[in-house]
Amino acid sequence: MAAAQIIPVILSGGSGTRLWPLSRPERPKQLHALTGASTMLQMTAARVTDPDLFAPPIVVASGRHVGEIEEQLGEIGSRPQLSILEPVGRNTAAAIALAALEAPASALLLVMPSDHVIGLPERFLAAVRAAVPAAREGHLLTFGIAPERPETGYGYIKRGAALAEGVFAVERFVEKPDAATARRYLAEGGYAWNGGIFLFEAATLLAGLEAHAPDILAQVRLSLDAARREPARVTPNPELFGAVRSKSIDHALMEVHDRVAVVPVQMDWSDVGSWDALHEIGAKDEDGNRVFGDTLVIDTKSCLVHSEGPLVVTVGVHDLIVVATGDAVLIMPRGDSQRVKEAVERLAATSQEGQA
Amino acid sequence: MAAAQIIPVILSGGSGTRLWPLSRPERPKQLHALTGASTMLQMTAARVTDPDLFAPPIVVASGRHVGEIEEQLGEIGSRPQLSILEPVGRNTAAAIALAALEAPASALLLVMPSDHVIGLPERFLAAVRAAVPAAREGHLLTFGIAPERPETGYGYIKRGAALAEGVFAVERFVEKPDAATARRYLAEGGYAWNGGIFLFEAATLLAGLEAHAPDILAQVRLSLDAARREPARVTPNPELFGAVRSKSIDHALMEVHDRVAVVPVQMDWSDVGSWDALHEIGAKDEDGNRVFGDTLVIDTKSCLVHSEGPLVVTVGVHDLIVVATGDAVLIMPRGDSQRVKEAVERLAATSQEGQA
Repeated sequence: MAAAQIIPVILSGGSGTRLWPLSRPERPKQLHALTGASTMLQMTAARVTDPDLFAPPIVVASGRHVGEIEEQLGEIGSRPQLSILEPVGRNTAAAIALAALEAPASALLLVMPSDHVIGLPERFLAAVRAAVPAAREGHLLTFGIAPERPETGYGYIKRGAALAEGVFAVERFVEKPDAATARRYLAEGGYAWNGGIFLFEAATLLAGLEAHAPDILAQVRLSLDAARREPARVTPNPELFGAVRSKSIDHALMEVHDRVAVVPVQMDWSDVGSWDALHEIGAKDEDGNRVFGDTLVIDTKSCLVHSEGPLVVTVGVHDLIVVATGDAVLIMPRGDSQRVKEAVERLAATSQEGQA
Repeated sequence: MAAAQIIPVILSGGSGTRLWPLSRPERPKQLHALTGASTMLQMTAARVTDPDLFAPPIVVASGRHVGEIEEQLGEIGSRPQLSILEPVGRNTAAAIALAALEAPASALLLVMPSDHVIGLPERFLAAVRAAVPAAREGHLLTFGIAPERPETGYGYIKRGAALAEGVFAVERFVEKPDAATARRYLAEGGYAWNGGIFLFEAATLLAGLEAHAPDILAQVRLSLDAARREPARVTPNPELFGAVRSKSIDHALMEVHDRVAVVPVQMDWSDVGSWDALHEIGAKDEDGNRVFGDTLVIDTKSCLVHSEGPLVVTVGVHDLIVVATGDAVLIMPRGDSQRVKEAVERLAATSQEGQA
C-alpha cells in the first residue's frame, strides 16, 4: 500500500428501526437502494474508490449481513480487503478498535457509517484531503456537517482555533440540544453537526483507547487473538467479543481526547434518519411527491410513496408517508415520522406476548 | 318440492371494480368475507335456508367461479340444487331467464344478488312471505328498500295502490335521480330504492320475457338446448349464449310489465358498493375505525383499514381508506371512494399499453 493511501473503514453494524418496515434486523437500511439506483452501502463505498487516495476498504459488519455486503461491494468493484464479522454489536468504540487492530499501525483510517447520504462527494473528498496532515500529526479528525437548520436530533461540535486551512481544534462536543439552544448555535455560528465520520492513524486511535478506554481495547484484542480467520475475513471470538463494554467512540474517546480536530464541510449530507428525511432529500415530482417502486399516485401531493413490492395506489391524499414491503405497510402523516418507533415498540411487545 | 317452497336464485355474475384492490375479475367481492366471518355469498345463501320456506338454491355464476362458489355454499350446508355456468356475462335478463327455464314452471323464484348485505334478515323473510300471494297471482314482485338518505346512486320505485298488506302496485320506476330530486323523493315519501331482489313464478317471468324481450328468451333457450350437462351443473352453449342481447331485467321487463308490485322493506340493506359503504355498515372501534385483518392502528380515527395479507400499520392519521391485498395497496380519503375507478382505469390503460 502506498504511504499516501487511506483505508476506508465502513461500519455496517446498525439495524435501526426508524425506517421500519423497510429497515429490519435481517436487512438494515444501508443494504437498500433508498436514495438512488445503488444501495446506501454501495454509495458509501463508491465515494472512496479513487486509487490515488484510497486502498480497498475494511468492512466491520454483523456476521449475518457480511455475505450480502461483500456481494454488493463486489458489484461496484470495491471488494473489501478485509471483512470483520461482529458476532454481536458492541457499539462504535469496539467496532473501530477491531479495524485499527487489523490495519497497519501507520495506516490512515477513514471511518464512515454505511447509511449516510452525501450529495456533494467532491466536497467530502476535499475535506478528507485537508484533514490528512493533521491526522498524520496525531490528531483524531472528525468531519463536522455545516448545520442547515436548528436540528435537535444530532450532537454538535463547537470549533476552536484554526490548526490549518479548513481544520480547527475542537473546543467542545455538545449533546443533542433543545430547540432554543439549537437555534442559538445556528445564529452564533462555529457549530457543526457531529456526523460520525472520522480520520486518524490506527496508532493514534489505539493509543487514545489505551489511555481513555483500556478495558475496551484489551477485550477487543483478546477477541481477535482468538478469532476465526478465513481469507479476507476475520470473526472475533464471540464469547470474548460479547464481553466488550458497549460504548460509542464519541463518548469513549473523541470527547475526552486532547487532540481532536474538526473539518467543517457543507456536502449536502443526510443520515436519512427518518422517512421525513428521505422525503426531504432527492428528486420529487411536480406535485412534491417522492415515489419509488411500483406506485400510481393520482391527485396526490407532497407524499412519500415507497414500495418494495406491491403496487401502491394513492388517490386524493397529501402529506402522507406510505411505505410498503412484501409483508407490511406503514401509513403516517409527513412531519411526524419519528412516531414509527411507537409502532415498532407495540409490535415487539405483541411479539413477546405471543412467545410468552 | 313442496308447493309452498321457494327456489332461491343467487346471481353471482358481477365482478365490479368499486372495491379494488379486493374485488378482482378472478375473485369478485361476493367471494370475500368483507362484512363478517362469512363471505357475502355465504351470508346471502344463509338467509334463505329455512326448509319450510326454501328449496336448495339455483346459482347463476361465471364458470370461472363456480368451483369456489359450490365449495363456499357447501361449507354452510347450502349446496346448490343446480349451478348454471355462464360462459360470459350477458346481464340480468339473460341470467334470470336461464334459471327460469331450468326451474319447474310453477316454482316461485326468489332472485337475489350475491353481494348485498341485509342487517335485519327476519324483516327480509317477512317481506318475502308477504309477497308470495301476489307472486302466485301472476305479479312480478320487487323488494323496495326504504330510503335512509337522498342517495343518487340507485334507481327508485314509486309505489301506487295497495294490493295487499305491505304490497303495492308499482306506479313507476325512476332512474338514478340528481341530488335535489333525491331529496324531494325522500321528503314526499312513497319511494323506495330498487335493490334488485325479485320474487315471481318461473312461468310469469318467462311469459313476460316472451311478451317484452322475445329475442333474449329465444336465444337463451337455444343456448340451453345445446348446453353441456353434468350432475347439478349446466353450461349453456358458449357461442349461442354469447349471442344473447345484454340487458338488465329492470329495463327488459320490470319497467314495462303491467303487473309489477313492490314490497317496501326496511331491513338495514347495503349493496356495499364502495369502500365508504363498507365503513358505514357494521362495527367500528371506539375511534370510529373499521379494521379487518392484520392491522395495527395507533392514534388513528375514522378510518377503514382492511388487510387481506400484509400487516398494515397506521399512525396519526384520520378519515382514510387503506386496503391491502397480497399484491396491491390502496390509500384514499374517506368520502371519496368512488375515485377508485380512476385508479382502475389508469391501471387498465397502462396494462393495455404494456400489451401493445
